Amino acid sequence: MSFSPLVEQLMESLRVLPGVGPKSAQRMAMHLLERDREGGRRLTSSLAEALECVGYCSRCRTLTEETTCTLCCSPRRDPSVLCVVESPADMLAFEEAGGFQGLYFVLHGHLSPLDGIGPEDIGLDQLEARLEEGGVEEIVLATNPTAEGEATAHYIATQLADREIRLSRLAYGMPMGGELEYVDGGTLSRAFTGRQPFQSD
Amino acid sequence: MSFSPLVEQLMESLRVLPGVGPKSAQRMAMHLLERDREGGRRLTSSLAEALECVGYCSRCRTLTEETTCTLCCSPRRDPSVLCVVESPADMLAFEEAGGFQGLYFVLHGHLSPLDGIGPEDIGLDQLEARLEEGGVEEIVLATNPTAEGEATAHYIATQLADREIRLSRLAYGMPMGGELEYVDGGTLSRAFTGRQPFQSD
Ligand SMILES: [Zn+2]
Ligand SMILES: [Zn+2]
Repeated sequence: MSFSPLVEQLMESLRVLPGVGPKSAQRMAMHLLERDREGGRRLTSSLAEALECVGYCSRCRTLTEETTCTLCCSPRRDPSVLCVVESPADMLAFEEAGGFQGLYFVLHGHLSPLDGIGPEDIGLDQLEARLEEGGVEEIVLATNPTAEGEATAHYIATQLADREIRLSRLAYGMPMGGELEYVDGGTLSRAFTGRQPFQSD
Repeated sequence: MSFSPLVEQLMESLRVLPGVGPKSAQRMAMHLLERDREGGRRLTSSLAEALECVGYCSRCRTLTEETTCTLCCSPRRDPSVLCVVESPADMLAFEEAGGFQGLYFVLHGHLSPLDGIGPEDIGLDQLEARLEEGGVEEIVLATNPTAEGEATAHYIATQLADREIRLSRLAYGMPMGGELEYVDGGTLSRAFTGRQPFQSD
């Protein structure tokens, strides 16, 4: 025996959410149908709207419903320093840590040849085009301190080697093998301040 | 700094789900927008469809998109025994435990005068109407073994006192103060088999 088809389908669909197993999915479906249909309807419309309208910023590729995000449009940011991160969440983590006044570039992942993820999949052609415009003097390669993040930083450094741009990497105050997004603000700040010139071996 | 308005709105809406705090909501929103928009769209349509079409069974009040649920329509169930439960999840727990061949009646909660939840809010008028039709010989009061569940069982027992219907309560093999939905199938089965005549003090 099971719930009715539409209830089962809802439980199945909820499992697309990270960390949600069969028992959590059932609890969530029951909560929405039994106790908070209004909240469920808000979730439906927020999700539909976000999936429909949220794309990438034309400049930094972060998630936004605007053509160009608020941060890229701000006259108070320094366009000569570009911080390259793997995800919008990493970008937010830097902003919450504070201290950085430059702009960002979001890769949405890292190079992963085995999964068929190459340079254009992480927007490196767009990064090159942006550098062609001139004005960028330093790039902080703030990919995760994981094997894939390191490899991606090295690849970008190699590609940019003959440009007149300073390359730096975050100082290792961060735990090795950790996910940047989950590092506390203080550690992130110190790592940023102590960033080092990039050495591609 | 924060994400764009639509992304923030999505994170806020995800917090309607039980057990989802700010950090989980962010992880879920990022997962849907960055890695699984197709899954997000399936969730949107499943949720919209369930909220629109899933209501209560006209007989047992469980959640279903049909007028009368599959179980209530089944000719293989014994209509002379009615098991009264607090939720559709409790009903499913009994079905998964197996052994019970009667029908159900779902209260969708319990009496809670302080929250303004009275007899009609848990469908007791509908239960009375159903008993008026005749044919029910035994009612198993399978509300949760909590103070509220006990009080609700006692209230129903009092209301039905002058009818020719046997009332029983689940045997206490169940942990006191526990939630029926989370009890393992074996314990539930034993509790059902060992059910006792109801004594209203
Ligand atoms: Zn931007
Ligand atoms: Zn039914």
